[in-house]
Amino acid sequence: MDALSKNKIKWIRSLRLKKNRDAEALFIVEGTKMVQEILDGDFAHVECLVTTDESFDSMSLAFHTDVSTMKSISGLSTPGTLLAVIRKPELKTEEVGWTLALDGVQDPGNMGTIIRTADWFGIKEIICSQNTVDCFNPKVIQSTMGSIFRVNVRYENLEEYFDKESRPIYGALLEGENMHTITPPKEGILLMGNEGSGISSELIAAISHPIHIPGSGGAESLNVAVATGILLSKLSS
Amino acid sequence: MDALSKNKIKWIRSLRLKKNRDAEALFIVEGTKMVQEILDGDFAHVECLVTTDESFDSMSLAFHTDVSTMKSISGLSTPGTLLAVIRKPELKTEEVGWTLALDGVQDPGNMGTIIRTADWFGIKEIICSQNTVDCFNPKVIQSTMGSIFRVNVRYENLEEYFDKESRPIYGALLEGENMHTITPPKEGILLMGNEGSGISSELIAAISHPIHIPGSGGAESLNVAVATGILLSKLSS
Repeated sequence: MDALSKNKIKWIRSLRLKKNRDAEALFIVEGTKMVQEILDGDFAHVECLVTTDESFDSMSLAFHTDVSTMKSISGLSTPGTLLAVIRKPELKTEEVGWTLALDGVQDPGNMGTIIRTADWFGIKEIICSQNTVDCFNPKVIQSTMGSIFRVNVRYENLEEYFDKESRPIYGALLEGENMHTITPPKEGILLMGNEGSGISSELIAAISHPIHIPGSGGAESLNVAVATGILLSKLSS
Repeated sequence: MDALSKNKIKWIRSLRLKKNRDAEALFIVEGTKMVQEILDGDFAHVECLVTTDESFDSMSLAFHTDVSTMKSISGLSTPGTLLAVIRKPELKTEEVGWTLALDGVQDPGNMGTIIRTADWFGIKEIICSQNTVDCFNPKVIQSTMGSIFRVNVRYENLEEYFDKESRPIYGALLEGENMHTITPPKEGILLMGNEGSGISSELIAAISHPIHIPGSGGAESLNVAVATGILLSKLSS
């Protein structure tokens, strides 16, 4: 197994920036368990593999490095023994059934959890506003638990996207209809907003069905990933 | 406003450890918005306040410090202008309606989100196994968004707790009954397990009603906070 060169270290570090991930159509997956799943499966194209484990079963794409170099290229506070550079998946567009639309979700952990939740409920496509966090951000990838390879995440102008849509648009709004009283159609779009400011005013007009998760307690709001899960459980079931 | 002394800096840092928080019945709240809410409300007893803002409206408990000292005592990567030491709330036990039980939830972000979600649905009490993350851990506090002052979180031996309970015990299990087909009772306990290993085998026997969130996609599991939200939305509505 070759040692990881300085050029490769520099190249991997450069993929922390979205513009470089976009330009090369690559992203980083970390953590021993998650990388091992990728190597065991055939759903992802591995471009380069870095390991601190000298006894790692050699493959031509694998490079060895020491623990301190791994720490310097890793985005995790406690890096695993494996890090992989992966080609972005090219998933087919499937605009049938339910689509999730995200307007400005900012937190990488929330974004990853939303992708994983959508995957659980069989959602094939997530359309994001341009100001939503990049789904290939390393922290998003860690939270998706592999769902990034099954769910097609696209970035578009949501106003224009909604203009062309004929499916009903359900939006999570505090003044919406009680979710327990609705009968969901077979297909539609669920629109969720930003963690702090919710759905932006330009997009509220596009909502045909405002819905609400009733609560009797003191919290001002629900976490956006939790709210997405509750609504998808109702709508897509 | 007095300057923050070295002794006070040491004391605040000591509260990062659970044993010191337990011994003093104190914990730390950070972030300008969250601390400001505490100061505006009357639901929490502020023991000490630290600010980097020299123009902060003075109060006898407030101490001034510089940005680099704030960084050194803060648990946040980008500290706000306010940090407060707060006395742990003494909330009344209310064993009516629905109670949430957590078996070994480890991630502070998940724990905080679960407390916030429970608060949304009017759950007054969460009973945790002894190996569940401390609810006064700074990262938990940041995710609760203030709900820690409304929900009573206790740590107990769950086997003994369940032995004394007469309410039905619903547990989230992959082989449970489809949640959409059940009619929830007015009161009960919802048991949720650890992020990786689920509900421990000793506690599975105590479950009277195993339930399941059906999904048609590829994800192996749901995030525990999302699953808690989906089940509470069904059971407590």
